[in-house]
Amino acid sequence: MSAYDDLMAFQRETEALGQVAGRLGWDQETVMPRGAAPQRAEEMAALTGVIHNRRTDPRIGTWLETAEASDEVEAAQLREIRRGFERTSRVPAELAAEIAKVTSTAQGIWAEARAADDFGAFSPTLDRVLELRREEAAALADGGDLYDALLEDYEPGTSATEIEALFNALRPRLVDLRARVLASGTQVEKLTGDFPEDGQLKISEQLARAFGYDMSCGRIDRAVHPFSSGSGLDVRITTRTSLGDPFNCFYSTIHEVGHAAYEQGISTDFLLTPLGRGVSMGVHESQSRIYENQLGRGRAFTGYLFGRMKDVFGDFGVADEDAFYQVVNRVAPGMIRTEADEIHYNLHVMLRFDLERALISGDLLVKDLPGAWNDRFEADFGVKVDKMSDGCLQDVHWSVGLFGYFPTYTLGNVYAGCLNQALRAAVPDLDAHLARGDTAPATGWLRENLQQYGGTYLPSDIIERASGRALSVEPLLTYLEAKFAEIYSL
Amino acid sequence: MSAYDDLMAFQRETEALGQVAGRLGWDQETVMPRGAAPQRAEEMAALTGVIHNRRTDPRIGTWLETAEASDEVEAAQLREIRRGFERTSRVPAELAAEIAKVTSTAQGIWAEARAADDFGAFSPTLDRVLELRREEAAALADGGDLYDALLEDYEPGTSATEIEALFNALRPRLVDLRARVLASGTQVEKLTGDFPEDGQLKISEQLARAFGYDMSCGRIDRAVHPFSSGSGLDVRITTRTSLGDPFNCFYSTIHEVGHAAYEQGISTDFLLTPLGRGVSMGVHESQSRIYENQLGRGRAFTGYLFGRMKDVFGDFGVADEDAFYQVVNRVAPGMIRTEADEIHYNLHVMLRFDLERALISGDLLVKDLPGAWNDRFEADFGVKVDKMSDGCLQDVHWSVGLFGYFPTYTLGNVYAGCLNQALRAAVPDLDAHLARGDTAPATGWLRENLQQYGGTYLPSDIIERASGRALSVEPLLTYLEAKFAEIYSL
Repeated sequence: MSAYDDLMAFQRETEALGQVAGRLGWDQETVMPRGAAPQRAEEMAALTGVIHNRRTDPRIGTWLETAEASDEVEAAQLREIRRGFERTSRVPAELAAEIAKVTSTAQGIWAEARAADDFGAFSPTLDRVLELRREEAAALADGGDLYDALLEDYEPGTSATEIEALFNALRPRLVDLRARVLASGTQVEKLTGDFPEDGQLKISEQLARAFGYDMSCGRIDRAVHPFSSGSGLDVRITTRTSLGDPFNCFYSTIHEVGHAAYEQGISTDFLLTPLGRGVSMGVHESQSRIYENQLGRGRAFTGYLFGRMKDVFGDFGVADEDAFYQVVNRVAPGMIRTEADEIHYNLHVMLRFDLERALISGDLLVKDLPGAWNDRFEADFGVKVDKMSDGCLQDVHWSVGLFGYFPTYTLGNVYAGCLNQALRAAVPDLDAHLARGDTAPATGWLRENLQQYGGTYLPSDIIERASGRALSVEPLLTYLEAKFAEIYSL
Repeated sequence: MSAYDDLMAFQRETEALGQVAGRLGWDQETVMPRGAAPQRAEEMAALTGVIHNRRTDPRIGTWLETAEASDEVEAAQLREIRRGFERTSRVPAELAAEIAKVTSTAQGIWAEARAADDFGAFSPTLDRVLELRREEAAALADGGDLYDALLEDYEPGTSATEIEALFNALRPRLVDLRARVLASGTQVEKLTGDFPEDGQLKISEQLARAFGYDMSCGRIDRAVHPFSSGSGLDVRITTRTSLGDPFNCFYSTIHEVGHAAYEQGISTDFLLTPLGRGVSMGVHESQSRIYENQLGRGRAFTGYLFGRMKDVFGDFGVADEDAFYQVVNRVAPGMIRTEADEIHYNLHVMLRFDLERALISGDLLVKDLPGAWNDRFEADFGVKVDKMSDGCLQDVHWSVGLFGYFPTYTLGNVYAGCLNQALRAAVPDLDAHLARGDTAPATGWLRENLQQYGGTYLPSDIIERASGRALSVEPLLTYLEAKFAEIYSL
């Protein structure tokens, strides 16, 4: 056995344990009895401790010194292992265990606080999570920027400064587009009525299959916050239903199918290896977003969805496919990120990006978060936040320590813009397929050009490679401006 | 930190990882996508390897040398850790790995052989499993009896000779009772008709709650084979439904609730410690059996169940509570252990006990097993075995190496007999409660006198302590003889 083989055999078991941890997380959000939470925190901490010990095992350092890659793929495997080893070695085991323990109960506390609309019930917990993550960031940053150190976990090779530059190019044209849409005088009605939830779940499963989700290696359950979980042969998604808002269910499902399709699309050569997972959150989000928006909310596919909804719900008060396309893409300055249209969504993200950078730098204190959130929201959206649960309590992320994660949502949109441009050029008759609910030419192109590679190429490399152009906000903006100019007759 | 504290902190994490493995097993049997199986095998192997390494960690030996117990509970904790460490340390790592490898595929081979009704397709595998377990037993027994060494895993402190003495006292009177019932001339009809499965599941949940199953720390799902899984704050059960056989669903549920109630009833002081699990398979089975039989199949509780079934299914062809009591307790000499009535069940178990002792001692060869099984079955049951899958291929146990496990089923019945006698003396008006579906006086007594102690006392000690008498088959026999004399007018 060579050093490379020894290292990969060791790593394979670590990857398998990482999958077990993922499965435990899925369990916690879908089927775990509520009373199990304190015990689960210890179970998860024990498992995380084992994984942490393996990831910092000194033998990895020894193997890395002598391991030799015989091709590009093996070089990428070593690159990912080295990156992980160096980062994980910097975080003390006690700190990693404490973070796992605190965040495992913090999520329940957040959920109760949100239900009670009571920021004070969550604030001490958030303080503690933030303190631990800042401590971790300091250990990782080695004198560098704290936020960049956290960002590296989600979008390797990208800095907050680069993101800020992209966002600075994006924001004024989005604000302008938003203003023109709202001033257009075109009224798009909101969907109204009741849509029985079993019918929503039925269509949801049809949509998942239409977008190529492999149910023999996955499953769909309900959860408070939709997510995709797992890699390789066991990639599960969740969705949610709301009687009056079937789009929430359908587009949550398509979004999570985008994530899951990426994991399911990775070459099985990479099963249980460092390359057998999506390379970054931003690239992951590019897949969920292009499935959800550029494909799922396009004129062609919404025509198909309109038919499915009529099959299940009968006449639901929308006249035809054109009207339905407008309803699906209605622009409104709502308070909830996950319900936002394609224009406002990125404004939601930029708000969070700026606030969490300030929390991590120490410029903003947790106690001042609600005020800062509400002020910024009113400035960007022209509406006052009505209650905490529609404001800074709405997202799960910070409760589980995900600082540095939010900007990857808009990065994903930017990536999706680039990919969509290349996809449309490669498959000129795509809309004819989508109108029939046939997404295969799109999902096939994405699998062929991006998904199959898993972690082989770094985020900016794989996006440039697949889209055939340098990263830019231009394709996303062009797409949005054209789409909403048509819908709102700008 | 004292050596005791260090040891317990280490052990606590191992216990937590053991719980994770249990949860993964639950997942596999209930919700896992089929296509995930190959990946799951690697995940489970990685986790099992981690747990094995911890259980054989040399530091445990060092801690045990100096750890001091300050009370009876700490002494019991050390006793359990020492027992586990010494046993695990005696088995060479290569042998343990080979057993894990062989048994992980053996179950699939057995399942196929059973489906094909082909003993020859399973026989070489069973030979290999038996050979490995005999080798393991020799390593464990250190010159002593091989079967006793295996039994120690399931029923610590009990020998095959003691079990044989109990069974020798039990068997003739069961054979006699069986003969008198079958010759009585009383005809008890079998339940017929269709019972919609959603109705079965509704009653199943009512029964679980009636027996005190805490759904805030548990859940009920469907699986091919009912089981209970987990300890402490997360104890899950499964059940199954069959359109024409609702009793299978109801009594599987009550049986598993008995197991789960034991785990849920253990003092939370013992959470994630060696005492925080049921002490043995036999004591576990005493709980599942007393819930299922002495309580659940008694005249009082079946009256309650009759009412629930009428509520859900309407008139289902059984005239009244007395007739229903007979139908529930119908005696019939079937070939399948898991479908057997209270009299025949123990005859099934004794057959397996004698045959597996002979296999382990070498007195019986695998190739002669079908003949030995069929001869013994005809002698005990008065019926010829019609096919292998109804005979020696029916149970999964031997394929996964569970030799020494079968007798704990009947030990559990014997224990349940002793406990039931003491319970009835302590709660004279118990049947008045059970007739209303109120099991609290029974489950409260069991929790107070047995369940709360978890692994604190060895099996025979806790049974004698709770029942206030020396272990004996007499209470079980007296109960069975009285019950069936009434039902069959003997």
